[in-house]
Amino acid sequence: MLQEAPVSGLNLHVSVDCVVFGFEFGKLNVLLLERKMMFQGQEYKDLKLPGDLVRKDEDLDTAAARVLKELTGLENIYLKQYAAIGTPNRLTRLERDMEWLRQIGHPEEVVVTVAYYSLLNIDQERINKFQLQEDVKWHPVSQIKELAFDHMEILADGLEALRTELRSNPIGFELLPSKFTLSQLQKLYEVILGVNLDKRNFRKKVTNMPYVIPINEKERGVSHKPARFYIFNKKIYEKTRKNSLDFSV
Amino acid sequence: MLQEAPVSGLNLHVSVDCVVFGFEFGKLNVLLLERKMMFQGQEYKDLKLPGDLVRKDEDLDTAAARVLKELTGLENIYLKQYAAIGTPNRLTRLERDMEWLRQIGHPEEVVVTVAYYSLLNIDQERINKFQLQEDVKWHPVSQIKELAFDHMEILADGLEALRTELRSNPIGFELLPSKFTLSQLQKLYEVILGVNLDKRNFRKKVTNMPYVIPINEKERGVSHKPARFYIFNKKIYEKTRKNSLDFSV
Repeated sequence: MLQEAPVSGLNLHVSVDCVVFGFEFGKLNVLLLERKMMFQGQEYKDLKLPGDLVRKDEDLDTAAARVLKELTGLENIYLKQYAAIGTPNRLTRLERDMEWLRQIGHPEEVVVTVAYYSLLNIDQERINKFQLQEDVKWHPVSQIKELAFDHMEILADGLEALRTELRSNPIGFELLPSKFTLSQLQKLYEVILGVNLDKRNFRKKVTNMPYVIPINEKERGVSHKPARFYIFNKKIYEKTRKNSLDFSV
Repeated sequence: MLQEAPVSGLNLHVSVDCVVFGFEFGKLNVLLLERKMMFQGQEYKDLKLPGDLVRKDEDLDTAAARVLKELTGLENIYLKQYAAIGTPNRLTRLERDMEWLRQIGHPEEVVVTVAYYSLLNIDQERINKFQLQEDVKWHPVSQIKELAFDHMEILADGLEALRTELRSNPIGFELLPSKFTLSQLQKLYEVILGVNLDKRNFRKKVTNMPYVIPINEKERGVSHKPARFYIFNKKIYEKTRKNSLDFSV
């Protein structure tokens, strides 16, 4: 029922922002753009998430893929929508954000943004061969102290969405080689969840998962005691899940 | 980086739509508005989700609560954002939708909508005492064949989001009395998930949940064999969950 729509409800703008996480075995990274401008008579640099306005002729998922490709060079990446944010003052809390909007000729009006996240294994060759644009770099998530606009909040929400997904679905296995050790699996969870897990409890838990299967093959050419390899069986996982209410833990 | 934002990216509009599910022990309902208009010389009626444009001075959650209250009378209800949808032709696929937009003076431009869902127990007195507005009614989800615009898809996505939530979190217990029977718990899951569950498997599963606890009290005044009551212990649930990776099933 739009009869009483106030005129002030019109002319919001819509953007997409992309939080692309890059997993390495040592740390979790996020892809950020360098923003440069003149501010109070000096050159000023800071970082922001890749994001831009949505066009009228594209849906939101298409916009997210287009913007990510245009601004970073990454393409053909699974992007998951996780939030829409429309806090009225979200772009104008800081003087330097307003100054930047003026310099690039952006209308100073409310922008509702739709946020997407993605998770890549940047140790893998496929990802390394992407040519990232010059002003785009991976930054360790734990070292980021400040971003433009409300991008710290968008990043924090994206990290929370990723962790929820990791705790509910077997997305972690997609980042591992098809044969992996339990140490690798544990490290992956630790890096993404940002916690240390007890080795014994972790192994006990994995042992109870019928879809994580030990195979008759061990590491070779390592200086420590060779660890056994495991595989993830998606069919067994789906069967287990189908017979479950899933709210059990 | 907004430098290259095309002018065509501006002047989208933003709305919120609310999918309010009403649980009864017999069936799952959704709250719909009757839409009336003159179409091709005749009075035409159909149904839509409660939704309206967002104002510039409010954030999206506030807009959803306001719109729901204005259009239905419901207030102080937890609304969960689950999707943003911006398919370019989403409002103009059907002639009667375009006609309605013209009749109410709505600009025929792209509206990105942010969708929210809620789940209420409408058997409970608290909900029944709400005065619903005259053109607003509960409809059994299973009987809905057609809605305005893309609201069938928004409803289907909302139902999927609700089911995912029910499978991942103990939201079902909030709809039950503090003391409940296993039959009530099973019925709740069956109604929301839209499936029949095997009684024996269901009970076996619940028995393995340390946070669903039998108490020393049974039904009274029933013609069948009185069933035992259970309670849900949130503290035990959270402790169990905290020690878990949660991706196990």
